[in-house]
Amino acid sequence: MSMNLAEKTWPQIEEYLKSSKHIIVPVGSTEQHGPTGLIGIDFLSAWEIAKVVGEKTNTLVAPPLCFGMAVHHMAFPGTITLSPLTYVQVVTEIIQSLAKNGFRKFTFINGHGGNIAPLTTAFCQAQQNDENYDIKLFNWWHLPEVTAYESKNFGNENGFHATCGEISVTMFTHPDAYKNVPKMDFKPTPERPHWPMSPKEFRLTFSDGRMGSNPALCSEEHGKMLFNLAVDSICQKLE
Amino acid sequence: MSMNLAEKTWPQIEEYLKSSKHIIVPVGSTEQHGPTGLIGIDFLSAWEIAKVVGEKTNTLVAPPLCFGMAVHHMAFPGTITLSPLTYVQVVTEIIQSLAKNGFRKFTFINGHGGNIAPLTTAFCQAQQNDENYDIKLFNWWHLPEVTAYESKNFGNENGFHATCGEISVTMFTHPDAYKNVPKMDFKPTPERPHWPMSPKEFRLTFSDGRMGSNPALCSEEHGKMLFNLAVDSICQKLE
Amino acid sequence: MSMNLAEKTWPQIEEYLKSSKHIIVPVGSTEQHGPTGLIGIDFLSAWEIAKVVGEKTNTLVAPPLCFGMAVHHMAFPGTITLSPLTYVQVVTEIIQSLAKNGFRKFTFINGHGGNIAPLTTAFCQAQQNDENYDIKLFNWWHLPEVTAYESKNFGNENGFHATCGEISVTMFTHPDAYKNVPKMDFKPTPERPHWPMSPKEFRLTFSDGRMGSNPALCSEEHGKMLFNLAVDSICQKLE
Amino acid sequence: MSMNLAEKTWPQIEEYLKSSKHIIVPVGSTEQHGPTGLIGIDFLSAWEIAKVVGEKTNTLVAPPLCFGMAVHHMAFPGTITLSPLTYVQVVTEIIQSLAKNGFRKFTFINGHGGNIAPLTTAFCQAQQNDENYDIKLFNWWHLPEVTAYESKNFGNENGFHATCGEISVTMFTHPDAYKNVPKMDFKPTPERPHWPMSPKEFRLTFSDGRMGSNPALCSEEHGKMLFNLAVDSICQKLE
Amino acid sequence: MSMNLAEKTWPQIEEYLKSSKHIIVPVGSTEQHGPTGLIGIDFLSAWEIAKVVGEKTNTLVAPPLCFGMAVHHMAFPGTITLSPLTYVQVVTEIIQSLAKNGFRKFTFINGHGGNIAPLTTAFCQAQQNDENYDIKLFNWWHLPEVTAYESKNFGNENGFHATCGEISVTMFTHPDAYKNVPKMDFKPTPERPHWPMSPKEFRLTFSDGRMGSNPALCSEEHGKMLFNLAVDSICQKLE
Amino acid sequence: MSMNLAEKTWPQIEEYLKSSKHIIVPVGSTEQHGPTGLIGIDFLSAWEIAKVVGEKTNTLVAPPLCFGMAVHHMAFPGTITLSPLTYVQVVTEIIQSLAKNGFRKFTFINGHGGNIAPLTTAFCQAQQNDENYDIKLFNWWHLPEVTAYESKNFGNENGFHATCGEISVTMFTHPDAYKNVPKMDFKPTPERPHWPMSPKEFRLTFSDGRMGSNPALCSEEHGKMLFNLAVDSICQKLE
Repeated sequence: MSMNLAEKTWPQIEEYLKSSKHIIVPVGSTEQHGPTGLIGIDFLSAWEIAKVVGEKTNTLVAPPLCFGMAVHHMAFPGTITLSPLTYVQVVTEIIQSLAKNGFRKFTFINGHGGNIAPLTTAFCQAQQNDENYDIKLFNWWHLPEVTAYESKNFGNENGFHATCGEISVTMFTHPDAYKNVPKMDFKPTPERPHWPMSPKEFRLTFSDGRMGSNPALCSEEHGKMLFNLAVDSICQKLE
Repeated sequence: MSMNLAEKTWPQIEEYLKSSKHIIVPVGSTEQHGPTGLIGIDFLSAWEIAKVVGEKTNTLVAPPLCFGMAVHHMAFPGTITLSPLTYVQVVTEIIQSLAKNGFRKFTFINGHGGNIAPLTTAFCQAQQNDENYDIKLFNWWHLPEVTAYESKNFGNENGFHATCGEISVTMFTHPDAYKNVPKMDFKPTPERPHWPMSPKEFRLTFSDGRMGSNPALCSEEHGKMLFNLAVDSICQKLE
Repeated sequence: MSMNLAEKTWPQIEEYLKSSKHIIVPVGSTEQHGPTGLIGIDFLSAWEIAKVVGEKTNTLVAPPLCFGMAVHHMAFPGTITLSPLTYVQVVTEIIQSLAKNGFRKFTFINGHGGNIAPLTTAFCQAQQNDENYDIKLFNWWHLPEVTAYESKNFGNENGFHATCGEISVTMFTHPDAYKNVPKMDFKPTPERPHWPMSPKEFRLTFSDGRMGSNPALCSEEHGKMLFNLAVDSICQKLE
Repeated sequence: MSMNLAEKTWPQIEEYLKSSKHIIVPVGSTEQHGPTGLIGIDFLSAWEIAKVVGEKTNTLVAPPLCFGMAVHHMAFPGTITLSPLTYVQVVTEIIQSLAKNGFRKFTFINGHGGNIAPLTTAFCQAQQNDENYDIKLFNWWHLPEVTAYESKNFGNENGFHATCGEISVTMFTHPDAYKNVPKMDFKPTPERPHWPMSPKEFRLTFSDGRMGSNPALCSEEHGKMLFNLAVDSICQKLE
Repeated sequence: MSMNLAEKTWPQIEEYLKSSKHIIVPVGSTEQHGPTGLIGIDFLSAWEIAKVVGEKTNTLVAPPLCFGMAVHHMAFPGTITLSPLTYVQVVTEIIQSLAKNGFRKFTFINGHGGNIAPLTTAFCQAQQNDENYDIKLFNWWHLPEVTAYESKNFGNENGFHATCGEISVTMFTHPDAYKNVPKMDFKPTPERPHWPMSPKEFRLTFSDGRMGSNPALCSEEHGKMLFNLAVDSICQKLE
Repeated sequence: MSMNLAEKTWPQIEEYLKSSKHIIVPVGSTEQHGPTGLIGIDFLSAWEIAKVVGEKTNTLVAPPLCFGMAVHHMAFPGTITLSPLTYVQVVTEIIQSLAKNGFRKFTFINGHGGNIAPLTTAFCQAQQNDENYDIKLFNWWHLPEVTAYESKNFGNENGFHATCGEISVTMFTHPDAYKNVPKMDFKPTPERPHWPMSPKEFRLTFSDGRMGSNPALCSEEHGKMLFNLAVDSICQKLE
């Protein structure tokens, strides 16, 4: 049964809060993912994983925050970013809103590396007036089961952005969207000279948006495996 | 064909921008909608309408901003609000991000009355350094075709919040979510003494969250009619 | 008797608060009003109307907030704007200051269309910590008695900015200031292509600052009628 | 002839800017001034002085900023304060607005001690992107001619807040407002233990709002002398 | 020779910038470090390491930012924190100031775990307008040479806060300060239930401020070894 | 004995707070001080004076805030500034942090003129929610004993920035740093045309960074005298 907060009524939430203070918050980004990856990969993957984790663990799932901290991708069309400070503020207010009516345990399922620092910053910001929350952050692509699979199947060609793993996962969750994406060969990309990079420098260095990945290795089948590994791993950690 | 920005690659957006600078941005809220309305009504309705409008007019559709300005609903569990100032900032940054890579025409499809003032404020904020954008705001429930239908079918019982119209629309778009919602009778609510109201006072006045609506009149059929009226009306105005 | 807060002592306010929690706050803008309208029209009109309403209803009147949200007029000399976000903050703090010492009912008398959205945003911002205020907003030129008069006397030539109505009102309240303003003929202006507009685009489109108005129709006599209609209408609604 | 910006048209300002880049900005506060002083003393005095200085020096005068930094007076009804940070931001934006269309020289005429620090802070904030303005601040009660007069006529009983000087000036400029103010005797107040003080502590220490002043010494005649001294002194310094 | 920016003149910096755009910025925190650790450990260690690294690599060293993001330690006297958002802003402005006059390469030497997320957030904030900086962050206690030494000598008893490593380093750099600190035995602390924690909950859980460390193992000798390992490791990575 | 907060443990602070609520906070700036003055003069002098005052009066001394409001010096390399608004916020948070755990009396020892306005602004900001603190500000170069000495020994050639006094003080406290600074002759500088000045205009006007000073008059001996005068004067006022 769907555990989406958005598809419940408030009396259903009131009832839920009698036995659980826990909510899952999916967060991602809207940003370029190389010449063949979807712009929405980061929130689509987090959102799809979160929905299944919610159902399996009987935990409510908040609507996704589709916009993230994507400053360094801003030289590619279609990217939307919140400034780092605004992103911290938004996440802080989402936590505080949910806390105001009784939630105390927050599991963030995150699909974007650039969000990690501002998310962590927001978790501190949200607690500075002695609110006491139990906040966990799962970056799904960092889960050990996921990295082991990627390492075995993609090796170094998994890359750092527009990775084989995340593209594969959305091939599994959004197969139709990939039907219009042309197949292509990929040349290796340079190493990143330092991090973070400015938008302009990022595009100068990584001209098609990939960082080290070879998306030719992606497949819906890999995506299904990775998706399930991520779901199972988070479910297990939540119990 | 889906026109969701999230399901495109950046080269597809680059291509799109050669012939159009136009993007649709659906915005809503995550807030109580009375004892039988979904918490996500405002962004779900905006998002579903936006997707069809995008397909029919061949216009890109940004991911939805699921969180809005819902301060006055904060005494009901499940509600999430951004502070008014933060909401203005977020919308400003979404516009500026899209503009940075070439978009110049923005059609906001909005599902929440409380967003209108901060959205309009953000449109000014986004232009204060002489950026020149063509920004339109459609509050779908204010479209004349929609209000005429509601007036005829629900009369005064359409109400001001958790309206028959918006509940019906999501009965049409999300029928499964309503299967677990009990049928009930509704008593009239008081008039609102003034506006806006504080969270506590709102709940004291409107104890089940409705403002004047009689959701017993809602139906999937009405929802289908209203949905199509909204879509057609916006499509027409965009041409 | 003058009901200006500024011309009272604090013990007089303490006394007043024993029987009333109500204060009128006049707000406007300092911005161009076409080739023949005063830059201060928006706050001068709100301030003059507020003073008389205060006297007639025995209600205190705060000093005017002379600066408003006038971003789109910034390409004309003499215009002063607060950024939309700052304006929201200022209005929020004015409400909170007055509330701290006992006021609970706020009547804003507004002379500028561009203020409506940020004012409404501020009213929500001011209540987000469960303060409970009764806030009313009167945009004097929107009062039905006023629009009926304007429609009858100026028709379409009343316009949208630097309107016949607001210029006439200040001809009545500030006749001396108009003595140095030359008479002139006016050509129709273009329609506005969209709204809001950036400063530069506004001036490119509306080169002398008017939006659709024909100030040749203005007169002190019209101003007197409109002023009294506005005062009477607000007084009546406050009772 | 009135030099009020608010009572000019934009073409008149455009003309003015051809020969002068100079504008006077009157700033004050809305705050308690003891049991017999007007709440508006600080902006009323600055505004009245500024208008005459403007006329005598043929310099434009902006509308008054009626609200100031009055945190420490917030335990007395009728006081309105902007937070210090907001006040800095507002003053910064007023300067930047006027500068955008050509003003380069700003003379602030200030009626409130609490504004001095945030005004000075704002002057730096306004120049941080290499804008180059000539900004002068006149705190009228600090002018040597004024302090000499006060010292001679009121001695130590001039006080630090709700001073004999500022009350006298507004007795001269606003005689009607003082007609309803009862005469009374005043006891000496304690010394201030430190500065600044919190609102609560201020009222505990200075129970009627005065700091060291004996308003029984005030008179319209003193006010006239002081008003003229302030006007002449500023005019002289501006030449 | 000292490479402290603070002990140079501006012509010396102008000269330096002809051959290097690189500056080291030491950052830490002022916060409790258990019953026997100095409150200044985090910035003192970063500052002392930075000075020697600067001398060895001939790189300028900015003054230390002594205040960090220490929200969770705020229930212990002597702790000073910047809010997370303010900390991000401060670091952003330090980078932008140095960049304005020619620095392009920034090496942050950090002594506090709580700073990592807001520092990383600030690095993105500083680059959002396409500034292109090479920014590196060294958390000295995370350097592999340091963790290897700590693991070998302190094992699990190194802990997570008020660690044996950081106390030892400051025993070496500030031996006098430790003369008045009593020797004591330490009981194991509980595991941390989640992270981050609120101030109150932190103190309830970790009543003397330590997280898992046994400071009885600390010594000036260990400190000397660790200090040199950190310095050498950073120097090597900078070349 | 050192009274540096940074070199204490939290139980030592807890003990201290039983008998005193007083802490000294040294603040300065990192900015150009002419061709022969150290960039760190403002915080180095405040910090060195504060340490000795702390020892002599048995008062705790917080770590120095090394960065100040130095906007107008930003055209000289090596200068670091916080924006005025950020500086106000930082000082506010330092006060609030210390107050949270019991400090109530704050003595700021300041080494930079540009800090005075934002410091004073921050003192008000920190008290706006009715916190009641005893805050004192000592600008050491403004102490009467110091100005008398400077006036007698340097006369008009003390100047307004990079003064003989402050350079001399740091010659005394940091003699090694001056060993590499060449001796030179100095020409008089122009008068300042207005204040504050923008960075660019400051450098155009004061090309080597001095404002009216003749650093050839500086000496370690003068520095020793001034340092002791400042320390003694503050100690006396604190008792």
